[in-house]
Amino acid sequence: MYQVESEIDVRDMARGAVFLGGGGGGDPRVGALFVIDQMRRGRYPRVIDAAELADDAFVLSIAGVGAPTVLEEYLVSAKMLRRLLEACTEFYGKRIDALISAEIGGFNSLMPLAAATEVDLPVVDGDGIGRAVPHIEMTAFSIYGCRATPSVVTDDAGNLSHIFAVDDRAAETIIRATCVGMGSSIAGAFYPMSGRQVKEAAVLGSLMQTLDIGRRIRTARERQSDPVQELLTYLDVPSEQRFARLLFEGRIVDVQRETRDGWHWARALLSGSAGGEPEFSLEIQNEILIARNRGRIVATVPDIITVVDSESAEPLPAERLNYGQRVHVIGYSADPKVRRPEAVAVIGPRAFGFDFDFVPIEGF
Amino acid sequence: MYQVESEIDVRDMARGAVFLGGGGGGDPRVGALFVIDQMRRGRYPRVIDAAELADDAFVLSIAGVGAPTVLEEYLVSAKMLRRLLEACTEFYGKRIDALISAEIGGFNSLMPLAAATEVDLPVVDGDGIGRAVPHIEMTAFSIYGCRATPSVVTDDAGNLSHIFAVDDRAAETIIRATCVGMGSSIAGAFYPMSGRQVKEAAVLGSLMQTLDIGRRIRTARERQSDPVQELLTYLDVPSEQRFARLLFEGRIVDVQRETRDGWHWARALLSGSAGGEPEFSLEIQNEILIARNRGRIVATVPDIITVVDSESAEPLPAERLNYGQRVHVIGYSADPKVRRPEAVAVIGPRAFGFDFDFVPIEGF
Repeated sequence: MYQVESEIDVRDMARGAVFLGGGGGGDPRVGALFVIDQMRRGRYPRVIDAAELADDAFVLSIAGVGAPTVLEEYLVSAKMLRRLLEACTEFYGKRIDALISAEIGGFNSLMPLAAATEVDLPVVDGDGIGRAVPHIEMTAFSIYGCRATPSVVTDDAGNLSHIFAVDDRAAETIIRATCVGMGSSIAGAFYPMSGRQVKEAAVLGSLMQTLDIGRRIRTARERQSDPVQELLTYLDVPSEQRFARLLFEGRIVDVQRETRDGWHWARALLSGSAGGEPEFSLEIQNEILIARNRGRIVATVPDIITVVDSESAEPLPAERLNYGQRVHVIGYSADPKVRRPEAVAVIGPRAFGFDFDFVPIEGF
Repeated sequence: MYQVESEIDVRDMARGAVFLGGGGGGDPRVGALFVIDQMRRGRYPRVIDAAELADDAFVLSIAGVGAPTVLEEYLVSAKMLRRLLEACTEFYGKRIDALISAEIGGFNSLMPLAAATEVDLPVVDGDGIGRAVPHIEMTAFSIYGCRATPSVVTDDAGNLSHIFAVDDRAAETIIRATCVGMGSSIAGAFYPMSGRQVKEAAVLGSLMQTLDIGRRIRTARERQSDPVQELLTYLDVPSEQRFARLLFEGRIVDVQRETRDGWHWARALLSGSAGGEPEFSLEIQNEILIARNRGRIVATVPDIITVVDSESAEPLPAERLNYGQRVHVIGYSADPKVRRPEAVAVIGPRAFGFDFDFVPIEGF
């Protein structure tokens, strides 16, 4: 069990979450501020290993749903999270033993911590996919047999729905539509699971890894070391089937974006030299999905593609990529559980409508 | 208690419902076919007076939600209605004593009859507004203190949501959004009410009036009498504060329509003489809301504006108004309960964004 006790920890976790989230998963500041606010009231998040869960424990995944640009405007309220969890206890008819993140991302990996402190529950060290994803049915929870519904969703005004979907694709559509009906920003409880299911289906260790990543970036800066290089060295662990690659270094020369159907869609172009032609592109649907260098695909979902500031190695949320930023683009292999064929079928490039296969990042 | 025993009755009710629905409330054929199909299996709808309800009876309003053009394509299944009512019994935790229509309209006044036969419940002679309305919060149920939620909605695939809204305006938005998420056609249970609430808030007698209206039109035709004139004579009963007026007679010369945000929006132009300039216009949002003669407003919601075929007096659903049809446009005063100032504030022209007040149809 790890008790998150310092604001520095929370900010490190937020930083690491933006990195693992591939720039998606919402605004890290919102989640961090929320958790820090709870800590100031003496409510400290506790992170437990999945191994500590009884097989028959009852675990819920808590997430915010909405376009990041909308989520940013609404600081999720403690009242809303308390209402959500009280409604869950009543709806599911049993005591909740722990919460788990649905995805790792700026906002969504911290949100369960915020919710957990509100009702004094532990959070499992892990999540539904080891990165951020734009669709609910794209989690390892779904891929490995858990169901997103019955779920409970609520908004800040107090509207609430229980949703029962025939499958997780339908769940995604209905939850997304409900979100629009509730003003485009909701909090929900998804994937009611047993402890055994969590151990089998979740990507484990990802929450504490956000702390590790954020901390390494910070301490490298403090030591005036090269934070990008330190990060790459830390992440690249072939013996554990994890690989990290520097994909590009240069400047952002163009970003086209729009918020449509509740998602943040964007395309960023990068150039290696001042005034040069764009050589490198990123395609974004909330998260960065595809990276191309001179037209050649160099990284794809489910591997993690993240843009960091060249100087500070601060990971940049996709919705805050802007013209002129000097950046490094890092590729990081997805958790091995998420690279299995059955997972790639659900979250690989073809699942997003691209007409090419997933190629592992270390293959280049 | 009236037991609907003949297919002729059902078709008369469907015809009358299109009339009272101001052309809205969905396709009458779908509802009629459904009820007739139930009757062929020996399941006959029973209509009871509200006075027969115990004050503590439990009554639910059943309605289809969706754009008429979409509803038309999906014949609501018996399985779906049974699932809805079984889910309601479980969700509300009590026996349902009767159903009631949320609105009178081609589809929505027959749908509770279809649902009721599936689980052997009576249907109350009345509805939520005495006409069709495009918004849930525009019913007399809402206006007179009942609440649309908690409600249960389901689609044909088996997806289901329980919805708890902070008010009926939020309910409308969330239910509409849920409908879009479920494929734009759902059936739902709304307004969980006591028998006492039904007696106070509902527009009473409207369901049997659909039978009266449909029957009168049919029998006038059979007698080779003038069905439009007979209808006007039957409807115009000043002693009961009900008035009917012939608003226009002519040809439809133009219809612009679109399905947007789940509603059918349209504008129809009519001309009194062949080849003449359009003199008369109808503005439609699912139902006909406003009638103008040479620019002068001659009828507005909540009064009922219906287009009938000039020859047969068959009431025409708004989505089937077409170029070239020879029609009479009839105005019929809304139920007195719906013309009170507190009701007009919610369902008068200003509630639809028009910048003029309601003028009772008999004022012209």
